[in-house]
Order: sequence, then C-alpha cells, then structure tokens
Amino acid sequence: MLLLRSLCLKPSSFTLLNFNSNSRLLHFSTLRPFSSSATVSPPSKAIIYSTHGEPDAVTELVEVPGVEVKENEVCVKMLAAPINPSDINRIQGVYPVRPQPPAVGGYEGVGEVYAVGQAVTTLSPGDWVIPSPPSFGTWQTYIVKDQNVWHKINKGVPMEYAATITVNPLTALLMLEDCVTLSPGDAIVQNGATSMVGQCVIQIAKSRGIRNINIIRDRAGVDEVKESLKDLGADEVFTEKELEVKNVKSLLGDIPEPVLGFNCVGGNAASLVLKFLRHGGTMVTYGGMSKKPVTVSTSSFIFKDLSLRGFWLQKWLGTDKAEESRKMIDRLLGLVQDGKLKYKMEMAPFDDFNTALDKALGKLGSQPKQVIKF
Amino acid sequence: MLLLRSLCLKPSSFTLLNFNSNSRLLHFSTLRPFSSSATVSPPSKAIIYSTHGEPDAVTELVEVPGVEVKENEVCVKMLAAPINPSDINRIQGVYPVRPQPPAVGGYEGVGEVYAVGQAVTTLSPGDWVIPSPPSFGTWQTYIVKDQNVWHKINKGVPMEYAATITVNPLTALLMLEDCVTLSPGDAIVQNGATSMVGQCVIQIAKSRGIRNINIIRDRAGVDEVKESLKDLGADEVFTEKELEVKNVKSLLGDIPEPVLGFNCVGGNAASLVLKFLRHGGTMVTYGGMSKKPVTVSTSSFIFKDLSLRGFWLQKWLGTDKAEESRKMIDRLLGLVQDGKLKYKMEMAPFDDFNTALDKALGKLGSQPKQVIKF
Repeated sequence: MLLLRSLCLKPSSFTLLNFNSNSRLLHFSTLRPFSSSATVSPPSKAIIYSTHGEPDAVTELVEVPGVEVKENEVCVKMLAAPINPSDINRIQGVYPVRPQPPAVGGYEGVGEVYAVGQAVTTLSPGDWVIPSPPSFGTWQTYIVKDQNVWHKINKGVPMEYAATITVNPLTALLMLEDCVTLSPGDAIVQNGATSMVGQCVIQIAKSRGIRNINIIRDRAGVDEVKESLKDLGADEVFTEKELEVKNVKSLLGDIPEPVLGFNCVGGNAASLVLKFLRHGGTMVTYGGMSKKPVTVSTSSFIFKDLSLRGFWLQKWLGTDKAEESRKMIDRLLGLVQDGKLKYKMEMAPFDDFNTALDKALGKLGSQPKQVIKF
Repeated sequence: MLLLRSLCLKPSSFTLLNFNSNSRLLHFSTLRPFSSSATVSPPSKAIIYSTHGEPDAVTELVEVPGVEVKENEVCVKMLAAPINPSDINRIQGVYPVRPQPPAVGGYEGVGEVYAVGQAVTTLSPGDWVIPSPPSFGTWQTYIVKDQNVWHKINKGVPMEYAATITVNPLTALLMLEDCVTLSPGDAIVQNGATSMVGQCVIQIAKSRGIRNINIIRDRAGVDEVKESLKDLGADEVFTEKELEVKNVKSLLGDIPEPVLGFNCVGGNAASLVLKFLRHGGTMVTYGGMSKKPVTVSTSSFIFKDLSLRGFWLQKWLGTDKAEESRKMIDRLLGLVQDGKLKYKMEMAPFDDFNTALDKALGKLGSQPKQVIKF
C-alpha cells in the first residue's frame, strides 16, 4: 500500500517546499529502487498529517515518489475525494478507528485506473473505480493498492457523486434497510434533515414509498430550506420551534406514526424524534452534531416500548460486507443516474485544499460538502 | 368475573360501615337472584377504589355478596396477595394499563380452590392456584373466575412466595432469558439491586453461572446490605459513590465486561450501568425509581454500539405467553422450594390493610414487600 510504503520514510528524508499560502510541499529526496521491468506509479501529491491535531494546523501537502505496481495491484489516478466530518475527526485523533500518523487524509473517493499489475484481469486503464469498502488515504493524486480494494463503477455518474457515494448515502440506505423492515406506506422521522445523510434518507425513502417527517433547526431562510427538502421528497419539514407543541403527533396529518427514527443531533432534536415514534418504534443514532446527549424517559422504554441503538458504517463494513456493500453502492449510483438521488456539493481544486478545508471546518459559515477535484 | 358482576351495582345500593380506623365497610343491600341449584360463592371482602387518587384516600373495604359459580368457573379463597408499586400506580391512575374504577385492587396473589363449576375437571377444592397471567382484583377474600385464569401450583412453597412469584421474579427471569442469550461465565450489571427484581436477578443469575455486578444507592448500613446481597449470590456490590472513578471497568477484577444491564432507577445509576457494559451491550430499563430520565452519549450508541430497550411484564404477557409463563413460574417456584430463590417480605393481616398500604407507600420508611394475608 502506497501509504505505508511511502510514509515509512523518515521526516528527515524529505524537504519542505512552499505550496499556496498555508501548506507546504514536501519533496522526498529518497526514492525506492525498482526492478527495471516493473510498472511504476507516477509521483503523487498527498495531504498528510504527521501528528494528530487541528486539521488546518497539522495537514501538509507532500510529494510522494512513485512506487512499483505489483502483479495484483492497481494504480489509480484519483479524480475526486470529499472532506467528511469523520476525516476531520480522524486527523484530530478523536475518531475511534483511524490510521496511525503519519498518514494520508481521506477515506473515500473515485479515481481512474492508470496502470494495472500483470495478474490483474478485471480492471483496465480508464476504468472508474472507488475503494470499496472505503479505505484510508484518498487525498492523494495516485494510489496503488491491491486489486481487491477497487470496485469498478459505471462512468455515467458525475465524479463528485461517485467520490461521495459510500460514507453518507450508504449510511442512509443501510439505516433504512438494516434496522427495521419498512414497507411502502410506513413512515420514518429524522432530525438533521439537511445533512447529506438526511437528504439521502428523504430521497431513498421516497423512492421506496416511505413517508418521511423531517426536523431541522431554526435558521434564517427556513422557508427555502423546507422547500428544497420537499423538492427532494420530504413529506413534512418542521423546525424544532414549530414542534414546541403538546402533542407533536397532532401534526402528522395523514402520515402514520413513524416506526423508525434517525438522530444525528442529540439533545432536544433527539427528544423530538422520540416523541414522534409510534409504540414499539426504534431510534437509530448516527451522529451528535449538537454535542448534547440523548435523554430518554423511563416510560418511553417501558410503556412506549421504544428501542434505541446506533449505526456506524465503519463497523458495518467491518463485518465481511464487501460484496453486499458494492451491490448497494451500485444501487445508489443507479439512483443518481436516474436523477433520484442528489445532494449539494462544491468541487474544490486540489491546489485550493486549504480553502476547502476551512469550509469543511465551518470557518466560512454554512457550506455545501467540499469535494476535492484532483 | 366477580369484579365486573359485583361492581355494576350502583353506589347507592350499599351502606358504609366502619372498618378499622381509616377504611369503611360497604354492605351491599342488593343481592343478585340465583337459581336454586347453583353453587354460590361466599360473600367476599374486597379493597376497592371508586375513583383514581392516592391509595390511602380512595381505597375502601367493601363486602361483596356471593355470586353464582358457573359451569366453567372456579371460586378461589384467596390466601395472600402483595401490594406492588404497579398496584399503587393503577389506583393513582398513572399506570398505562389499568381497570376502570370502581375496581378491586391487586394484580397477583395465591388462593385455595373453594368450589368449582360443574364442567371443571382439572381443579379441585383444596388446590393452590394463582391467576396466571395475573389479573386484576386479587385484593379480595373470594374470587370467581373462569378456570382458564387459574394455574395450579405445588403446595410446597410458602404462600407469600406463591403470592408474589409473578410480577417481580418472572420479570427477573424473563429479562435474563429474553433479552440477550447469556452463557455461563457471561456477566450482567444492574442498579436497584436491593429491589425485589434485583434480588431475584442475583439469585437466578447465580443459579445459571452468570456473574453479576450490582449497584446500590449510598445509605446507612451499606455494609450489611452488601453482605446480604453477597449471601444471595452477588459477585460484586458497589454504591454509586464508589463508582465515582475514571474507569469503572478497572473494578471488575476477574469478572468479564457485562453484556447485559438492567436499569430500574434512571439518572446517574443508569449511566453507571452503561459505563460497565461491554461493546455491543444492551441495557434494559424496567423501572425509574429516581424519577430521572436515562441520559446516553452519542458515542455510546455509535462507537460503543450500545442498545437500549425496555421490559414490561404486562406487555410480554399480553402476547399469547400464558403457557410459557406458567412453565417459567413453575421453574421459579422450584427454585424457591430448593432454597435458591428468596427475598424479603412482610405478611400483613387483611384487617390491617391500611398499615400495610402505608408501608408500601413508603410512609413508614424503608420496608420489606408487604403481602396481605387474608
């Protein structure tokens, strides 16, 4: 793997060069020896961090020398990769599963096959591939990994969707399919509905005939936000303030009481999800944007028979789900191609990584998902 | 059913008589006509409430006339019945499933068959029976109900155990068997360990080779309490204060991290159960003695993969479990007979119901479970 092979070089063996205003370009002065007949990947540029810390302080742009593409390996020229919150948490060192620094950032993305090892028959130069299950180190221009890492996808989708299809849309799909058996006409409720997972939940639910109730925080331009979510397929969108009523279920209209709820916020927004749930319902927590815990009354457990659990894609993927997850990704890409799955993103040139990072860190106000274009 | 048949009498049709200091004896002035050949139950005394409210204000002792024992019915002379917290909550009108007043109090108990209808072949006078599943109205001296209501039990156990075997011990057994598959050597953790369910959990766990960690509130005489729980089979007993440490798991010694936790307290005591649980563990809430909610961090759901749910015996019994529950009750009574299941109770003469009620209401300090002896 490029990451491990390259970054075993000691820091003293590369030179720092200026790159943009904030980043530094490291030039490796030591190159590995290759056998003369071997295929060698082009030199690569990568965003690395040598220690955990705030991403804008610890990430650096480095130049990584080419490596031999072994017989079962594939060299992929990366096209695009997003900056997800979990990428940031891994760099900060607060994410439970993370590579040991020095490490290249990123966890998902899409690339084009550049060269294949001699024993590789299922992939050819020009194919579009994604690492599936996703794997660490997608923020670099060329990646060499075993052929099994790569899942060939249809080129008919925009690269920014291919780059982002795993972490968020797959989470939405799995939460809708793996937690509770839903039938058309059933209803779900979620908070954080404007998040990327939230947008996907709305659209996947709609594509399956599942009614969906959405909770958003009170904000400026709330009418536009509601309209945009309804355009995606939201049945109802409420702000937290609008739900300060005695019985939220009185607002359901013809929507049945939801059997399943998704919580990525915590605090009051989680309590609102619980209030909407029907007897015997389940709330799945997959995020905690408010940094507040989930609070549940005793009677919710005993008399309302609610169940609470979590969902973590990385754990799900770790349970031998590679084949299943690839089929689900193909389904999701099919929805994208059919115009049934879309979400807001902003492409950022690799050279302007620092601005994209600042946007992803929330330093420039509310911004769409940042996707690096290599 | 005696309850419904008798209490359809209008209040104007009976006379109040003094009974003890606080209760009143109602004498029904209207008697139903019976056919001359029918078996008729003896007149009964019952604790009834005509309206929801505080039990010491709304309960009354009444005299209920005898009723015909129809061909499939059995008349049972009640021997003993406990005052459970859920009985109190039903009288208060705050329990979700409760009879409509006027109603006789009580939900479980034991009695001796007094007379049987002509078509009854499986029960005979002298048999000991319990209503199973339990049913409303056990606080009366004679009960007439369909034969299917009654489960014949072995007379080899003390009547106070037979009277109390369903609500609390069956909850403990079901929580240990129905929530997570436990194997000998596995561990569980619970708060409220001195409760009747808590005491049963310890002993049933011990009988199955399941290690158990117990959390109790800080109180006077804590050493004696710990000793008494260890005598029952507790592996470890901690007060909440003793668990104010950075990592509660450092206190586990050779006990494995528990896979299952029981919460009947809420608040901090519930958080302590969650702290002990291993990755992927489950906490079952069956009570909320502190009246504080359960608070859970986002990471507990996502990264620790904890699941939270509730247990309510009345719901479980409502799902066609009569046969299964009777087998489990026989198992529990077997444990009692073998000296492997015991818990603290106090027998109270029916004539002194008011004192027993005051004790059950906590008006006289911490008291053992009150069991009315008829």
